[in-house]
Amino acid sequence: MKKILNDPSNFVDESLQGVVLAHSDLLRCDDDLRVIVRSDAPVRGKVAIATGGGYGHLPVFLGYVGQGLADGVCVGNVFSSPSADAMLAVTKAIHGGAGVLYLYGNYFGDKMNFDLAAELARDEGIEVETVRVTDDVASAPIDQMSKRRGVGGVFFVYKIAGACAESGAPLKEVKKAAEQAALNVRTMGIGFSPCTIPASGKTTFEIAEDELEIGIGIHGEPGIARAKIGTANELVSLLLTHLTRDLDLVSGDDVSVLVNGTGSTPLEELYVAYKEVHDWFSQKRINIFKPFVGEYATSLEMAGFSISVLKLDDTMKRYLETPVHTPFIKQW
Amino acid sequence: MKKILNDPSNFVDESLQGVVLAHSDLLRCDDDLRVIVRSDAPVRGKVAIATGGGYGHLPVFLGYVGQGLADGVCVGNVFSSPSADAMLAVTKAIHGGAGVLYLYGNYFGDKMNFDLAAELARDEGIEVETVRVTDDVASAPIDQMSKRRGVGGVFFVYKIAGACAESGAPLKEVKKAAEQAALNVRTMGIGFSPCTIPASGKTTFEIAEDELEIGIGIHGEPGIARAKIGTANELVSLLLTHLTRDLDLVSGDDVSVLVNGTGSTPLEELYVAYKEVHDWFSQKRINIFKPFVGEYATSLEMAGFSISVLKLDDTMKRYLETPVHTPFIKQW
Repeated sequence: MKKILNDPSNFVDESLQGVVLAHSDLLRCDDDLRVIVRSDAPVRGKVAIATGGGYGHLPVFLGYVGQGLADGVCVGNVFSSPSADAMLAVTKAIHGGAGVLYLYGNYFGDKMNFDLAAELARDEGIEVETVRVTDDVASAPIDQMSKRRGVGGVFFVYKIAGACAESGAPLKEVKKAAEQAALNVRTMGIGFSPCTIPASGKTTFEIAEDELEIGIGIHGEPGIARAKIGTANELVSLLLTHLTRDLDLVSGDDVSVLVNGTGSTPLEELYVAYKEVHDWFSQKRINIFKPFVGEYATSLEMAGFSISVLKLDDTMKRYLETPVHTPFIKQW
Repeated sequence: MKKILNDPSNFVDESLQGVVLAHSDLLRCDDDLRVIVRSDAPVRGKVAIATGGGYGHLPVFLGYVGQGLADGVCVGNVFSSPSADAMLAVTKAIHGGAGVLYLYGNYFGDKMNFDLAAELARDEGIEVETVRVTDDVASAPIDQMSKRRGVGGVFFVYKIAGACAESGAPLKEVKKAAEQAALNVRTMGIGFSPCTIPASGKTTFEIAEDELEIGIGIHGEPGIARAKIGTANELVSLLLTHLTRDLDLVSGDDVSVLVNGTGSTPLEELYVAYKEVHDWFSQKRINIFKPFVGEYATSLEMAGFSISVLKLDDTMKRYLETPVHTPFIKQW
């Protein structure tokens, strides 16, 4: 296992210490390393957004804590859910009097713990609402959307909900904005090679030298098919065919696009993919507004990429343009 | 070769098309895809900074084009120098009347072509100065610093020179700021596993499952030793011992630090390294000012990391704080 590691069982804590030490201007961690909030939390009168999940997906989830996105995060071990206690601690640390939105990817462990934390928070008089992101089209059919996993498209939901919250909107409206984004975002990914989990030394999946996993999840969950390596054009067309159909996109629609690297895929290759995305949508007369290319949701060093598409209305377009300032994501 | 590729021989051009399509708000490419400048170039009255080199190192070099860093870039094929013609074209496109600084890593092919371009530019009445970055301590002894390669520390030299140029300083002063940064920055890297060059399908080096290359270059050039995998603490101590000695750092000095991933090393691991960097410098009573952690100079999907240290004075501290706005690097 070639990794920058000391004791593998301390991997998450040591990494979090590094994050907090490097970014003490923007992030704060009071007692528990697994509870990290933006340095100016709680922001009085603003709806706070809490998120969380397993570690190993940077910038998901910790990297989304900051102005314009989320207010706080609870961090689990690699690929495993944080505790309800950590979620409650985040909730209390970020609550600025206007309620808290729990916004996270749709996984059983996270749901269970966030739901429990919500109950406990309500007992303490904090208003809590929840939106789960279910953007992974490969994980269930569209008529079972609530069973779909949350993957890279969560970025867009943070962006829209975060911008809405920064605008001073009340909890109900921030929740609605998040739901609207979650309803209109779709993602599908392709895995080239797995990652190794530090604590176990095990890889997340096995795959032949000339094969890809189509529709892979961010923990290496199997997708819809194994296929031989194709050209960039073929891979992008395959993903966009699924995404466009699922979103019911038609000529004249406006979308934003995220071409996301899952860990070890070079940025140079992601831009080859983006060129294909651009050509594909141009041909369909679908307009790309404000594309994003880079690592927005990773699985340690998994090689591969995903494409997320967000179908836009004017409100979402405005929210996409507002500033973001976290140690990992910056926009203005 | 599991890559997002169409025709491997078009890899660079297709990737550049993707970059220009995705970031047309910040970058401009008029005729030649290998000549890319910030969208508002030439900036009248400002010293312009030109850079360039082989492709495959994003954000080096193209990713440094934008406000606060460089004004334009000429892009070669993967790991090979761009042409003098492209360099001249960049020079003319960014020249705002205050002269042009050529700022790039110290490699033979780049030097030859930039020197030729400088001659041609001077023939056209453009004042040109040159600073080459020689930060890689593993590539030659300190008494032969002019033979050292340029690697990840080039980021700091762009940052300092770019900030100086944005302040309206004349060419002589921008050159001096770049020289001062170049003189005070050191880098050393460790390679875990190689990358594959798309056009040839060949890997840059071979290495055993339990070995690391200490002092590796950004094209896979051999370093000073092969070693068995150590702990994060051991790896960071090894690099910082070399860097600190080479820079003659003493207790009370101020430095900035860049922990750079070379392609497929997870951000999570880079932060484990940063924690070790922080502890090491704390113990030596050397103050870290404004650290950077992430991918700043890569070699496609090479696994590994490098540490760059910049010894600071008050002017450099001020320049480190000024805004940067490129599609790849943002700071404010």
